[in-house]
Amino acid sequence: MAKELKELTSKEENYSQWYNDLVVKSGMAEYSAVRGCMVIKPYGYAIWEKMQRALDDMFKATGHENAYFPLFIPKSFFSREASHVEGFAKECAVVTHYRLMNDPKGAGVVVDPDAKLEEELIVRPTSETIIWNTYKGWIQSYRDLPILVNQWANVVRWEMRTRLFLRILWQEGHTAHETREEAIEETMRMVEVYRKFVEGWLSVPVVVGHKSANERFAGAEDTLCIEALMQDGKALQAGTSHFLGQNFAKAFDVQFANRDGKLKYVWATSWGVSTRLIGALIMAHSDDNGLVLPPKLAPIQVVMVPIYKGAEELQDVVSRLEPLAAELRSKGVSVKIDDRDNVRSGFKFAEYELKGVPVRLAMGPRDIAAGTIELARRDTLTKETVPTEGLTDRIVTLLDEIQRSIFEKAEAFRDQLTTMVDTWDDFVRVLDEKGGFILAHWDGTPETEEAIKDATKATIRCIPLDSPEEAGKCVFSGKPSTRRVLFARAY
Amino acid sequence: MAKELKELTSKEENYSQWYNDLVVKSGMAEYSAVRGCMVIKPYGYAIWEKMQRALDDMFKATGHENAYFPLFIPKSFFSREASHVEGFAKECAVVTHYRLMNDPKGAGVVVDPDAKLEEELIVRPTSETIIWNTYKGWIQSYRDLPILVNQWANVVRWEMRTRLFLRILWQEGHTAHETREEAIEETMRMVEVYRKFVEGWLSVPVVVGHKSANERFAGAEDTLCIEALMQDGKALQAGTSHFLGQNFAKAFDVQFANRDGKLKYVWATSWGVSTRLIGALIMAHSDDNGLVLPPKLAPIQVVMVPIYKGAEELQDVVSRLEPLAAELRSKGVSVKIDDRDNVRSGFKFAEYELKGVPVRLAMGPRDIAAGTIELARRDTLTKETVPTEGLTDRIVTLLDEIQRSIFEKAEAFRDQLTTMVDTWDDFVRVLDEKGGFILAHWDGTPETEEAIKDATKATIRCIPLDSPEEAGKCVFSGKPSTRRVLFARAY
Repeated sequence: MAKELKELTSKEENYSQWYNDLVVKSGMAEYSAVRGCMVIKPYGYAIWEKMQRALDDMFKATGHENAYFPLFIPKSFFSREASHVEGFAKECAVVTHYRLMNDPKGAGVVVDPDAKLEEELIVRPTSETIIWNTYKGWIQSYRDLPILVNQWANVVRWEMRTRLFLRILWQEGHTAHETREEAIEETMRMVEVYRKFVEGWLSVPVVVGHKSANERFAGAEDTLCIEALMQDGKALQAGTSHFLGQNFAKAFDVQFANRDGKLKYVWATSWGVSTRLIGALIMAHSDDNGLVLPPKLAPIQVVMVPIYKGAEELQDVVSRLEPLAAELRSKGVSVKIDDRDNVRSGFKFAEYELKGVPVRLAMGPRDIAAGTIELARRDTLTKETVPTEGLTDRIVTLLDEIQRSIFEKAEAFRDQLTTMVDTWDDFVRVLDEKGGFILAHWDGTPETEEAIKDATKATIRCIPLDSPEEAGKCVFSGKPSTRRVLFARAY
Repeated sequence: MAKELKELTSKEENYSQWYNDLVVKSGMAEYSAVRGCMVIKPYGYAIWEKMQRALDDMFKATGHENAYFPLFIPKSFFSREASHVEGFAKECAVVTHYRLMNDPKGAGVVVDPDAKLEEELIVRPTSETIIWNTYKGWIQSYRDLPILVNQWANVVRWEMRTRLFLRILWQEGHTAHETREEAIEETMRMVEVYRKFVEGWLSVPVVVGHKSANERFAGAEDTLCIEALMQDGKALQAGTSHFLGQNFAKAFDVQFANRDGKLKYVWATSWGVSTRLIGALIMAHSDDNGLVLPPKLAPIQVVMVPIYKGAEELQDVVSRLEPLAAELRSKGVSVKIDDRDNVRSGFKFAEYELKGVPVRLAMGPRDIAAGTIELARRDTLTKETVPTEGLTDRIVTLLDEIQRSIFEKAEAFRDQLTTMVDTWDDFVRVLDEKGGFILAHWDGTPETEEAIKDATKATIRCIPLDSPEEAGKCVFSGKPSTRRVLFARAY
């Protein structure tokens, strides 16, 4: 067994530590010298690149274009939209100077006091303000609408989190519309794009719903979200899509001449997902042996490990693996042949389990003689010996099967950890003993939501879109309610 | 004619104004509310996306992977490499605080004086320091080498330029090697990748060479570059590849156990190109009618404009254009049918000339009757009427032809504006009267280079790789020289 693997904390023992160990030891990311900032290593970044490519294709298929806006936002912009400033302008990186100078006392470099900015600049925590300030120049008439723009960018929020893959890189869509209806339709369209992506690519099932007023984005009239359940029974918000009404249009005075020639304020949406999705991916599927990656996002889908004694045998086995790898690559499968001679096969097996490579193939002289190969699945940890003939088709089918299988496993887990609760005692007990999602009645007031949060740390994750009308009593206040909402403790 | 076009300043009249007009009016980019920052609009960003895709493929084909490092660099890191701090840490964005608060006097938000950082953070102007600080943890043995990593990122240098498409988004490769030879080989490999890319995709010919010591990257032992010539006779540095020796390894104490088990410092390279390439693209090819885009980077390669009277005719023509567009798209050609009914065809023609769409097709009822279509080339502004039969093949061939043709035009221009000069009088006269590149002898001293720069604003763009050994006398000092170097005034 690889030394690194032995040091992987078990999930049961300490979930947080297991997660951090996993991220670092699998080579996905690590902490940097800058407090709160991480380095995304090539293996982790390759997953993000695959996510970007798939999402970008989906954005373009729904009519969106990419653009790029400034990293810095003038401080005063945040004060324009009243609730936005409360939500975002507080914990942020503030640029106050634009020059360093040699320390007159000789101790390296110091900030040049003469190079103070007249107005401080904020490193963008989100870009609504600078974008709506820009849209003002782009929109005069209804013919300029809709604007369907997305930005791939880095954002900074000064949250000193201990978890890696906090928000650091993301995409933010910002759209402008002629009518309220069209903007609401866009908000729904994009949350559905996110649902499809997270379920289809990450193999993580989600609940789609509206946020309660308390949990809404600062500046939004309505926030839609997708909520996923992690293996420790905590919820993770995986994506949001906001209907912003005319709030930003009014704050930045963006009006257009409508079809009747009258000046009207523009309707807006914004929507985003971030590298946080990588965290969701890891926490939803991985186990004590390491990552379990869905084939569609795995940087390496198939790894081939030669079993051999001596340099000659190694070369012989590798020469048999190469045409198999070439055939797989021709079908779009990413393959790595690990021909290192300085580590044992057992070390390699453990390493690729840690890295979550979906399929491992091992071949030795006996396999060559028999025309077979050993095939191991990462998700189920099962092994079988199969003929090399027809291997490519078998693997292409298997990758699809794994993609589906880990979704179904996560879905069964989620369903099993979703509990309908009707009394406060049950609510508290289920939350503490079982965890997961709780479907319960709520009286619809922010005060009750706040009280539940104070008492249990559970929040309303969303009001599910598919939650049926059902008469009931609020689990906390006993007041009447018309539908159940989704509670959980969350990241 | 479109109103916007009338307002395009001519290149002859005012080159800078022509450039800025062109960038803004073609919808590529615009100035933002933040001084010195620009907004890259969808049309400009689509070009950058195509550049990124092509370059990224070339990086991966040469064995590189992408990763992502922190946006912020601790101030003290810049002092570690002595020459690096001089070159980079001076004009930069400095983060000093991490929180805002409501103004006690009620005037919006102000910086919270209690949230001052212990050590200021610099928004990365380039990432050598933070990356080499990270590599320290990645490298123990020669088996960990080479590291071949690239980062796509935003960078900030506090240059208050008036030109749009200053450096804002870029890629920076950072590699680590076992030997000096291997690192030098990498430096050469990457400048060659840049040459291929800029000549093959941007259709801009370049001179490849070494920078003189004065013009070298701060912290490099050798800088290779590609230099392009713009239509105003000024040079533009389009990409650089640096051999960093062991400077950063020593500054961040990055050693490895070599094959003999001895500790050695790692050898390094770094290389980058930025959105400045978009500026090069524009300034190399465009004319008084607007942009001229090489087909490989054009967001729209073919635009189709229906010629019609009345709604019925419009619909009829569009229905004939659609199958032609579908056939072109099936061959990988990007096509737009402009069926707007609120602007005249002449307006559309002018607009697509401004936007540099390589091929324009126009069809009216008479064309339909004759089985023809009007085909116009943006680069030559020529038109011909051709049969619709065989149109797809004709256009696929034509796009290649245009790509080659604008390269050849730029090359002929560059060659015509490259002058061999042997006396100081000629040097000054050619520079003032003709401009362009000057090949002249130089005595190899920084003092002479500086004196020439002071006298004429011309700098040594590079010592071309293909410059032959040739005995001569320095054009300024008269001292002996063994080869000519490339001078120009530059952006």
